[in-house]
Amino acid sequence: MPQERSSNIRWHEGLVSRSDRQNLLAQRGVTLWMTGLSGAGKSTIACLLERDLIQRGRLCYRLDGDNIRHGLNQNLGFSPEDRTENIRRIGEVARLFTDAGVIVIASFISPYQRDRQAVRQSMPQGDFVEIYIKATLAAAESRDPKGLYKKARAGQITGFTGIDDPYEIPDKAEIVLDTEQLTPEAAAQTVIQYLQARGYFSPAAVDGETSGSDR
Amino acid sequence: MPQERSSNIRWHEGLVSRSDRQNLLAQRGVTLWMTGLSGAGKSTIACLLERDLIQRGRLCYRLDGDNIRHGLNQNLGFSPEDRTENIRRIGEVARLFTDAGVIVIASFISPYQRDRQAVRQSMPQGDFVEIYIKATLAAAESRDPKGLYKKARAGQITGFTGIDDPYEIPDKAEIVLDTEQLTPEAAAQTVIQYLQARGYFSPAAVDGETSGSDR
Repeated sequence: MPQERSSNIRWHEGLVSRSDRQNLLAQRGVTLWMTGLSGAGKSTIACLLERDLIQRGRLCYRLDGDNIRHGLNQNLGFSPEDRTENIRRIGEVARLFTDAGVIVIASFISPYQRDRQAVRQSMPQGDFVEIYIKATLAAAESRDPKGLYKKARAGQITGFTGIDDPYEIPDKAEIVLDTEQLTPEAAAQTVIQYLQARGYFSPAAVDGETSGSDR
Repeated sequence: MPQERSSNIRWHEGLVSRSDRQNLLAQRGVTLWMTGLSGAGKSTIACLLERDLIQRGRLCYRLDGDNIRHGLNQNLGFSPEDRTENIRRIGEVARLFTDAGVIVIASFISPYQRDRQAVRQSMPQGDFVEIYIKATLAAAESRDPKGLYKKARAGQITGFTGIDDPYEIPDKAEIVLDTEQLTPEAAAQTVIQYLQARGYFSPAAVDGETSGSDR
């Protein structure tokens, strides 16, 4: 009588918890949210950090414009509403990955404080680690890895962060990485040390402290 | 000279590949897409399958209405366009998780063939395994675990799949689980055996065959 047996089994919350997944992975899920100007060094640090984490046997996954703007958010533009919806959806995806036990490396300009704050507030304490990739506009513009500042200055791109759209500096980032002072390798190591010191490389509960000596 | 060193390092594709993640997890990422009527048994089988996979040390993650409709897709309703966008976004999230090396258990009515097909086509061969959770409308309606058929029959819900909105039966599901014939436990085991037989429990390449004896 499969039907009767089936009707006796119903779990809304499931039979597996986040901590089961974290025990399996021997780590804690977390979203490392890298914010900063175009050219500040987000992608470079994200790639190095990803490599270092995998080498240490930690499961991580990188979310960035390449895999989000051409996929999940392909139906969004760059209006203020679309920018907000862009970050909201990325935040929701990061939240799911974090719940899955994965270390998420999210690398987005994400210029508005309010949008970043909304992502932070959607997650439990300790799940969202904001990392400000700090560089002056002059430094970022002088690097101009994609030639976008040049286009923005020439008026070929409008609404470009730092030129004719604001970048709001985080006021409570857990980690600040000044890429005019640190090499990308050292910046990635700073994040690794933060995770290590706070117990993210073990499935046990994490120190709820989200501000401290790394600021 | 951190700035100069930084400018020499730039990777668009990253330093880590999907196969690095799969080697770490000793499994291959895949999306198990469960489709079927409300009351067909999707959630019950999904929960059992999730438990069995975790017990075997396989990292899996369940996507369902509970964690998607209240989060990523909270700004979508039930119009035909919104249903399509709902499935599109879920497909994109499943694709990211699969790329991360995770076994995704996606459990959604997903009534339209076209929408499921679009998700399948967005993924490499072997990454999308469609699982038809088969039950007659009469059987599903007699179970009515959430009392939704009753409300739909009373006209309190409109556009309800099976009542006044169509369910399009998959015509090329890799796995068909008839919940009037199989217990939920046996159904979950059928999926485990499918994954095992096709090499998903190893990081090596998977047999590209997506139709076969399980149909």
